[in-house]
Amino acid sequence: MKPIKQIDIKKGMKVDDLVKEMSSSGVFGAGRIARAADIFEEIIEDKECKVFFGLAGAMVPGGMKNIVIDMLKNNYIHVFVTTGANLTHDLVEALGHNHFQGSANVDDGKLHKEKIDRIYDGYMEDKVYITLEKFFDAVIDEFPRRKMNIKEFLWEIGKHINSKNSILRICYEKKIPIFCPGIADSGIGMMIWGNLAKGKKIAVDAFADLKEIVDITWTTKKRAIFYVGGGVPKNYIQQAMQFSDKQDGANYGIQITTDRPEYGGSSGAELREGISWGKMNENGKFVDVYCDATIALPLIYAAVKDRLKWF
Amino acid sequence: MKPIKQIDIKKGMKVDDLVKEMSSSGVFGAGRIARAADIFEEIIEDKECKVFFGLAGAMVPGGMKNIVIDMLKNNYIHVFVTTGANLTHDLVEALGHNHFQGSANVDDGKLHKEKIDRIYDGYMEDKVYITLEKFFDAVIDEFPRRKMNIKEFLWEIGKHINSKNSILRICYEKKIPIFCPGIADSGIGMMIWGNLAKGKKIAVDAFADLKEIVDITWTTKKRAIFYVGGGVPKNYIQQAMQFSDKQDGANYGIQITTDRPEYGGSSGAELREGISWGKMNENGKFVDVYCDATIALPLIYAAVKDRLKWF
Amino acid sequence: MKPIKQIDIKKGMKVDDLVKEMSSSGVFGAGRIARAADIFEEIIEDKECKVFFGLAGAMVPGGMKNIVIDMLKNNYIHVFVTTGANLTHDLVEALGHNHFQGSANVDDGKLHKEKIDRIYDGYMEDKVYITLEKFFDAVIDEFPRRKMNIKEFLWEIGKHINSKNSILRICYEKKIPIFCPGIADSGIGMMIWGNLAKGKKIAVDAFADLKEIVDITWTTKKRAIFYVGGGVPKNYIQQAMQFSDKQDGANYGIQITTDRPEYGGSSGAELREGISWGKMNENGKFVDVYCDATIALPLIYAAVKDRLKWF
Amino acid sequence: MKPIKQIDIKKGMKVDDLVKEMSSSGVFGAGRIARAADIFEEIIEDKECKVFFGLAGAMVPGGMKNIVIDMLKNNYIHVFVTTGANLTHDLVEALGHNHFQGSANVDDGKLHKEKIDRIYDGYMEDKVYITLEKFFDAVIDEFPRRKMNIKEFLWEIGKHINSKNSILRICYEKKIPIFCPGIADSGIGMMIWGNLAKGKKIAVDAFADLKEIVDITWTTKKRAIFYVGGGVPKNYIQQAMQFSDKQDGANYGIQITTDRPEYGGSSGAELREGISWGKMNENGKFVDVYCDATIALPLIYAAVKDRLKWF
Repeated sequence: MKPIKQIDIKKGMKVDDLVKEMSSSGVFGAGRIARAADIFEEIIEDKECKVFFGLAGAMVPGGMKNIVIDMLKNNYIHVFVTTGANLTHDLVEALGHNHFQGSANVDDGKLHKEKIDRIYDGYMEDKVYITLEKFFDAVIDEFPRRKMNIKEFLWEIGKHINSKNSILRICYEKKIPIFCPGIADSGIGMMIWGNLAKGKKIAVDAFADLKEIVDITWTTKKRAIFYVGGGVPKNYIQQAMQFSDKQDGANYGIQITTDRPEYGGSSGAELREGISWGKMNENGKFVDVYCDATIALPLIYAAVKDRLKWF
Repeated sequence: MKPIKQIDIKKGMKVDDLVKEMSSSGVFGAGRIARAADIFEEIIEDKECKVFFGLAGAMVPGGMKNIVIDMLKNNYIHVFVTTGANLTHDLVEALGHNHFQGSANVDDGKLHKEKIDRIYDGYMEDKVYITLEKFFDAVIDEFPRRKMNIKEFLWEIGKHINSKNSILRICYEKKIPIFCPGIADSGIGMMIWGNLAKGKKIAVDAFADLKEIVDITWTTKKRAIFYVGGGVPKNYIQQAMQFSDKQDGANYGIQITTDRPEYGGSSGAELREGISWGKMNENGKFVDVYCDATIALPLIYAAVKDRLKWF
Repeated sequence: MKPIKQIDIKKGMKVDDLVKEMSSSGVFGAGRIARAADIFEEIIEDKECKVFFGLAGAMVPGGMKNIVIDMLKNNYIHVFVTTGANLTHDLVEALGHNHFQGSANVDDGKLHKEKIDRIYDGYMEDKVYITLEKFFDAVIDEFPRRKMNIKEFLWEIGKHINSKNSILRICYEKKIPIFCPGIADSGIGMMIWGNLAKGKKIAVDAFADLKEIVDITWTTKKRAIFYVGGGVPKNYIQQAMQFSDKQDGANYGIQITTDRPEYGGSSGAELREGISWGKMNENGKFVDVYCDATIALPLIYAAVKDRLKWF
Repeated sequence: MKPIKQIDIKKGMKVDDLVKEMSSSGVFGAGRIARAADIFEEIIEDKECKVFFGLAGAMVPGGMKNIVIDMLKNNYIHVFVTTGANLTHDLVEALGHNHFQGSANVDDGKLHKEKIDRIYDGYMEDKVYITLEKFFDAVIDEFPRRKMNIKEFLWEIGKHINSKNSILRICYEKKIPIFCPGIADSGIGMMIWGNLAKGKKIAVDAFADLKEIVDITWTTKKRAIFYVGGGVPKNYIQQAMQFSDKQDGANYGIQITTDRPEYGGSSGAELREGISWGKMNENGKFVDVYCDATIALPLIYAAVKDRLKWF
């Protein structure tokens, strides 16, 4: 049996030093953070492995955008699945707006009068929707006049973004498949509704992306899943894993969640459960991290970034 | 100030007696259950009000199907939004399969070999997918040869279901709008992928339902939102509420969730937050119930059902 | 495999009918409520079994007092362990005060000026401390002039309570052992501090109760543990279980908690973990219920009360 | 309004660089970590302020011992309140044993046969109790033959510990008041029970420490509260704060918890609630951090340690 070494904190220690201390203690949440860093390092070093990254929760307003962009730029993400809300917030920032630091102990009626939309203790000015409208007014006629899948539709948006610091833009530039089955459920969705109402022809198929994600899963030697939050992004990748080469499922897995298994939902399900479905390989390396992602993701990512020699 | 009356338990008491005791105590979780029952009763009695019901989580395997069906049959739900998974599980049962009582303390590798898919402590035989395939093989050619929205597509499935005890069937029969923006993320989605691969023509638009849900919201005098879990179903209804008549938002709100606000995600957001966005009316009556939905929903529903004289 | 029967709600159904429906579904939180009811029924019917009941959390302000009193009166609890806070709140009510229904969305500075102490959405008038002082001033000289254990000290308080509707009073009258290792951490503790400061002689030993709880555990044929919340009450009973006859541990176990295992603390630990320590019998019947206790306890108790024929 | 700056991760970044990035984002969990670091830095720099530190949860097996010792050595903690379990685990390590890295997915019956006690995914050999017995056998006769308060009793244990790396030892050496109202609820408690059974005279008063903690609170110009977990340690400090100079309550507050407010218990209560009671100063600086303490505490502590110039 390996002893639990008590964590030592030293002045000026680097994030990876701290995570290595967590590895030496090895238990509870600290142990999980450390295992996630180890597994993510191994994923990156495994050149046969493609990373399927699912991002749910208000992670762009939550300050996680640049980490995702850094991962995309460095080819640590090969298939990106997220919510319409995160893409809308990404577009909002790409078009020049900020999200703001606010408070949850606030009179929401007052915020409403001031046209401030609250996202827990983050704020967004409601006027961003005017900017979004202008953007789509300006570019919608340049969208292809044929049926697209959602990935193509999102790349098309990315193509018209000038900012270099955008998830949508990077995915477009690097041709990283970006899937968002619930895209209608978002500000972007509402913009398309508005344009359809104006008689614009935008044809996006609800099912057509499935072929792409299944094809990638099927033809990839090894697969890693990395979930920040649950929801549709996690579940969509999970179902694709059932169609992996030799039905092997994912070879690596990291999940950061604040949900719990006992309520039965997909978001809280342990990665282990995926073994029964063939979504996770029985011999895979995986860990569930039970922590606010705005704490856990930067911690894990900073540790791993420090370890990569060729970085 | 109103005293907290200690809850008294009596032999043979009815569910509504218990919920009324909870109302007299009025605090913590018990108080929230009681307020939810009061608000739901008021919603049902308010004939000008339409109920937008969002259902996330594995609620069909979780035993909640018949409650949802009962609500649909009794016109307590006017707009139904859910996940692809719940509709797939509904279809699985409609085609003659059961879900099973299992255990989470189990060797998932062994389950995989036995072709049992685990949903926390519920099980599903993997062979249900063969049944789903046969069903779609038999009916897919009868689907309309035109572009559908997701609602029409789901009604079409409902039309071909023989079982009377099915959410999809009831929604079809009663022409209750059923929205599922993330439908591709489900077993039903995978069936359509399979049929597209075989060259079948199924055209379902990703955005077309938005017009319907916005139109309903816009033309309804009063609106109630009722969320079991968060995810896309909650968020999709929330965004529709912004387009309500006079931009009033929802007049009533009930949310049953096990998530929490501090992590910033939509699933854990208090209904109060919606006021800032114009999704919830500042003068609306609403309550957040923090409880496993398989406990809270039956409790609330049984209490309210008992109160309705004309029922 | 046993199918998951969908829960049916009927007009006028009794609480036990509902819990039996939950038993037929058998999964997630509903399944756990049902198993807890079944186990508690079996505990009560097992005449060789003594029940060790641990009560943590603000359960008296939370409306659970009368359920506890009913259990004590009916001999469903043989050893009672709780926090100093619950006993203080019990005494406050026994001396004629109420707790009140309030709100958590409130200006706490304003409450402070109004001399209202907040317990989430419950309120207590700060003047209850004056009543407590008067009570102890009136009775303290009648307390025995010898070293007491905490149980004797608490019975002594109970002896001087006139109200029949008090946990402290019932435990005194029925000579039910009441343990509260953390008694100093409470309003009652502060009253004793005040009297010690005034020169009164009250001598209560910190360790002396251990002999009593260990003796009871050691000499009891079968043991049931029932935890509402965790903290000291749970842990204190758990450690006593290690000293049970033949080192068998508890034969039955019910735990209602909102904590979770992964953070490593005792409050969130699964009852199963106790097997490794010899606190829980490997062949025991036990269940962890993950739910707000103000919802779960009344539900379970009402169901079981209905089942007892001789009640 | 201050923009939410997206968090940037750089190769080789120090922990404090990361926490400063979290400060720039400012929202959700990351924002709370950053505010806790800022407040803790300010606490340390405020020479008029005494720090009341409450430690609950299995934090010694969880790898947090050395951080606590470092804080004690550096005079960052002036009043230390914890559980009997943490002190027992501290003593176990001081007497030469380790805790071990294990697994929660394990057969607890098998562990029981192997005499391994499980603490979630940490293990402890049951034979530590033999070592504890030997220790007390060797030293108990040297304990004072007079009534002690719990603090004196714990210092007495510390006096007999040879290891320098022990919480109990450091508190004894530095005469840091260490309070543990629930000491009977622990392995140390059981050892005293054993010695009392053997006829040894150990007299420890349950209430006598209250005078000390109240006196310290009363005579201190400014007060900081720092809670790792809730339970008795938090509540005991909270009640002492009511007796602060000018009834000002705490001037600073940091709470790391995984509990939540809505269930009404003290462990999950927001620090803000303390304002109504006079436990927290209305103008105080405070933050609630919702995170596994084994992640949050090392992160905050490493950041602050880096900031202190004179350290």
